[in-house]
Formats: sequence, C-alpha cells, structure tokens
Amino acid sequence: MGLAERILKGDVRAAARLMRDIDDDLPDAWHELKKLYPKTGRAYIIGVTGLPGSGKSTLVDKIVEIFRKEGKTIGIVAVDPTSPFTGGAILGDRIRMQRHSTDDGVFIRSLATRGYLGGISRSTHDIINVMDAMGKDIIIVETVGVGQDEVEIVNTAHTSIVVTVPGLGDEVQIIKAGLLEIADIFVINKSEREGAEKLEQELRVMIEMAPPRQDGWTPPIFKTEAVLGKGVFELIYGVSRHRNSLIESKKLDGKNKLRTKKHFLKLLQTRLLESVLGRMEEGETLDKMLQQLVDRKGNPYGLVEKIMREHLKSHLRSDHGGKGKTHS
Amino acid sequence: MGLAERILKGDVRAAARLMRDIDDDLPDAWHELKKLYPKTGRAYIIGVTGLPGSGKSTLVDKIVEIFRKEGKTIGIVAVDPTSPFTGGAILGDRIRMQRHSTDDGVFIRSLATRGYLGGISRSTHDIINVMDAMGKDIIIVETVGVGQDEVEIVNTAHTSIVVTVPGLGDEVQIIKAGLLEIADIFVINKSEREGAEKLEQELRVMIEMAPPRQDGWTPPIFKTEAVLGKGVFELIYGVSRHRNSLIESKKLDGKNKLRTKKHFLKLLQTRLLESVLGRMEEGETLDKMLQQLVDRKGNPYGLVEKIMREHLKSHLRSDHGGKGKTHS
Repeated sequence: MGLAERILKGDVRAAARLMRDIDDDLPDAWHELKKLYPKTGRAYIIGVTGLPGSGKSTLVDKIVEIFRKEGKTIGIVAVDPTSPFTGGAILGDRIRMQRHSTDDGVFIRSLATRGYLGGISRSTHDIINVMDAMGKDIIIVETVGVGQDEVEIVNTAHTSIVVTVPGLGDEVQIIKAGLLEIADIFVINKSEREGAEKLEQELRVMIEMAPPRQDGWTPPIFKTEAVLGKGVFELIYGVSRHRNSLIESKKLDGKNKLRTKKHFLKLLQTRLLESVLGRMEEGETLDKMLQQLVDRKGNPYGLVEKIMREHLKSHLRSDHGGKGKTHS
Repeated sequence: MGLAERILKGDVRAAARLMRDIDDDLPDAWHELKKLYPKTGRAYIIGVTGLPGSGKSTLVDKIVEIFRKEGKTIGIVAVDPTSPFTGGAILGDRIRMQRHSTDDGVFIRSLATRGYLGGISRSTHDIINVMDAMGKDIIIVETVGVGQDEVEIVNTAHTSIVVTVPGLGDEVQIIKAGLLEIADIFVINKSEREGAEKLEQELRVMIEMAPPRQDGWTPPIFKTEAVLGKGVFELIYGVSRHRNSLIESKKLDGKNKLRTKKHFLKLLQTRLLESVLGRMEEGETLDKMLQQLVDRKGNPYGLVEKIMREHLKSHLRSDHGGKGKTHS
C-alpha cells in the first residue's frame, strides 16, 4: 500500500514519512501528493505571523488547547527559525510543546528547509495539503512576520492573524510596511506590558486610515497574555466571526483560489526549472556556463534566451504574448 | 541613445529609470541589462543583515561616511521593510539618510516590490548589476535578517555582516537558526547596552563550536555604537581583512560564481514561467484551470505535468535525467 493510501487510513507515520520526502524533494512525493489532492479542501487554514519575540508560538499553543477541547483536530506547520516547533527556541518552549506532540489530534511539522529550487512556500502548500487530506479540521501556519515568501504564505490562509507586542519600538512601522494588507485580525500579545494602550491606539488609527477592504471586513484588535491564556477565547471567537464573514460575503472561494494559484505557480515554476536543468546537464554543464558568465564571456540574460529557445516548443506567437517577451 | 549607453556615460537619471523598469518588469529592462553586463564584475559587494531594531541602517550610514572620505563611490540596495531607505522608518532616519542622497558618489535604491513572479532576489541581483556597471566601487545590500530570499541575497555578497544587538533575548537563538552559516563578520551594535558582554561571549562560543569553515575564515566580532560612529573603523578594517583573505585563499571567484548561479537560476525560472503562462493565456485561461483545481476536478501536480508536456520540447531521455522527474 502506498503512502497516500496509508495516510487516508489515518497512518500518522506515513504522513510524517511523506513530509520528509517532500522536504527532500523526492519524485515519489509528487506521485503521492497527486493521489491525496482529491481529499483536500476541507480544512480551515489559519495563518499566524509576527516578529521573533512576539510570543506567537505560545499563542498558537493556547489556541490549539482550546480547539482540542472542542474536539477539533489540528495540523501545525511552523515556518519560523525562532519557533519552538523548529527547534530554534529555548528548551522550556520545546518541553511546553511536547504536550501537544503526544496528542494524536495534533500533528506538528516544522519546515527547516532552506533549499533553493523548492523554496519554503511550495513545501508549505504541499504539507498543508497532506494535513488537509489527513482530515485535520484546522491547520495553523506559523511564520515569522518578515520575508517575502513567509508573508505570502500567511496571506493565502483563510484567516491571517498578525501578532504584535508593545515595546518593540518600530513595530507599528513594520506593520505599515507590509503586514497591514494581509491582517484579518490583529493581536497585541504581552498586553500587560507598558505601551499596550498606545500600540492599540496606533493600530486603530492605522486601520481607520487604510483604504477600505474589498471584502468589507474591518480587522479587529485583540489583546492577549498568551502565557496566562488571557484573551485567547476572544481571539478564537474573532477567527470564527471572520470565517462567517468570508462565507456570507462569498469570499471563501476567492481565498481558496488565491492559495491554489500561488501553489500551482510555485509548482510549475519549480518543475520547469528542474526539468530544463536536468536536460542541460546531459549536454554542456551548468558549471562551465556559469564560469563563462563570471568571466564575462557571456551574459545571463542572453543565456536564458538561448536555453528557452532550445527547450521550449516554438509556438507561432511564442514570445510575444506575455509580459516576459524578450529582445535579442 | 539607450538607457545602458547613458548609464555607462554616468547618467544617474538613466540608472534610476532602468531600476524602475526592472521593478515593473518591463521587457526593455532585460535588453538594457544585457548590454550592461559586460561592464559588471568590478564592485565589491557587502551584505548587511540583522533583525529590525538592530540599528543596521545607522551602521550602513556610518560605513558609507567612512568609505566616502576614502573617495570610494557607493551603491546601496535596501531590501528591508523597516529600513529608512524604503521609507519604512521614522522621519528622523529619513532625514539622516538624505545627507547621502544628495551626494553624487552615493546611489541609493530601495526595493519595495512584493511581486510574485519576479521576486525580491532577482530584482536585487539585477540592480546590483546596474550599480556595478555604473562603476560603484562598493555596493552595500541591506536586508532584514529573516526570510529565505532575504538571507540568500546577503549570502551571495563578498562579505556578509550580521548585525546583532544586546537585549533582544532570543537573538542568539535566531542566529543559530540560520545566520551563523552566512556571517563573515558579526557586529554587536548598541554595545553600550547591558548584555553586550554576555552576547559577545555567547557568539564566541557559538563560532568556536561551529564546524570549521571551508574557507578557513573565523568570523570576528566587532562591537559598535553606530549612532556615535564608535567601532565603525574597526569594522571596516575587518571587511578589508576578509576581502584579503578571500583573495589569498582564491575564494573570491567561488563567491562570484555562487552569486552568478543564484541570479542565473532566478532569471531562468522567472522567464520559463512567464513564457509558459503567456502561451497558456492564448488558449485555455489560467483562471478556468484554477477553478477546476479549487473544485477538485483536477490536481495541480497532474496539471503541471500536462503543461510541461505541452510546452517543453521532448528529448530522448527527457524527464529521466534530473531530480525533477515525474510519475504519471
């Protein structure tokens, strides 16, 4: 029996094995993902992002606790070098999370991959699909709140939570710079700290001054003390309200399409490159070509055009349709 | 006269224009970059990375000041949502940087692009090439110290500086998680703060415990107070020592090849995807296909295989050479 079949029968070891294969980019993983895909599309995906030190892992821990009491099954994908899930944080955090790791209803997977061709966002989407096919009700994707790929992953969740914390100084500026657009919900964690009121006020002004969102949703702000579990129920209720709003405004399908699109484009991009590189290695070596570029005996732009002519089928209007048309 | 010719004659406006065209991914930009490439390969590239709040922009400001006094010309590429260069920071910072922006010897370009197809790292390499062709002696690339793309950019610099600061708590853990491998030089900025000694000790232990580097270089630690300019001369001397070490150990060529490779692969990946998407739009629309995926009437993995069969030339051993072989 293949991994996909075993996963659909609830075999957790098979799921862990497939996720390792995805990380290692094994061809078999592709095959199994194909078989799992028809069983996906049922999980609700929550993205949680914030700077290192915002306490978002503790928050995720408390969110999981409450969802578990409701009997919901959870998948956690941690894409964050500072997360206890990825082994980056201090021992105390790791011990805390082990509580969930012995719970059958919680499946945790960290992404430490820094591979070049694959990229974090592609693996993340694949792993979300595996957890979805496993039948997890809720999948939480935790990423650090900076970095193009990392922010994009959270942006494709059904509900995106941006975790802030008082006293980081530039925090509000950081949010302005990129996270405002993606936040469905703001959390001020460690809200017992000085500056929480001020941060809340600043966020509120920011939200009011932002152009109205297409979906008509105004991001609420929740204050939490994750370590004590304070405010977490309210936050979960906020997630539930956002989910209802998505359903009522018929925006859920749009969110799904956006995530599907990002995933599909990443897959296509990766496979195209891998396939073309694979073909090239049969002939002239990549290394030799690179040396010529370093020696300025060629240029990367012209080389890319040459490779495309050699490996892409020629179409009548081939390179005149898209944005990426080239000049020779 | 084309942009490339004007840039090579020292026209700063033409350079700014080309960089905007690169951001907008205009086909003409590609054409101009091709013409500029033979004139690149002379600049020394310094990567500066660190978490928001580490004061790396102030540090870059002081580094530039010293290099300018030596008569060196400078290019700055800021890939950081919190950087004053990208307009993310407070007014004071912006005013501070304007000092350099009126200096002809300093060319500053911020990358705010969050585009999907292009990606930050490709634009950054293209813009480094423009500055290199402009004849800038030193190009400083400033990125935030998290995020896959962002870390990778710094990793392709000749000298990578990782800026830390006392009192961020998890700081050392964050470095462990990804930045240790890429740091040629560590800086403890704001070193007047409590905890600087402890941080230095922790970093030193970390460096000692790390496996020996292939290039034989042991990353030094510098303590700075960038606001006062303290320790910046020592840091610049450290950069110079690292540069000499690269030359003596004949590793400079390897660094150049690595950067060329990353850039080339990004270019190829982007153009392949753009070209294939451009062809697809002539026929069946992407949107229709995505809806089928959302409805689970197809799967993205099978769709990618189909598209590759349709658009890649078939070779005898086509998909059996590379890692990316597929199963149908």
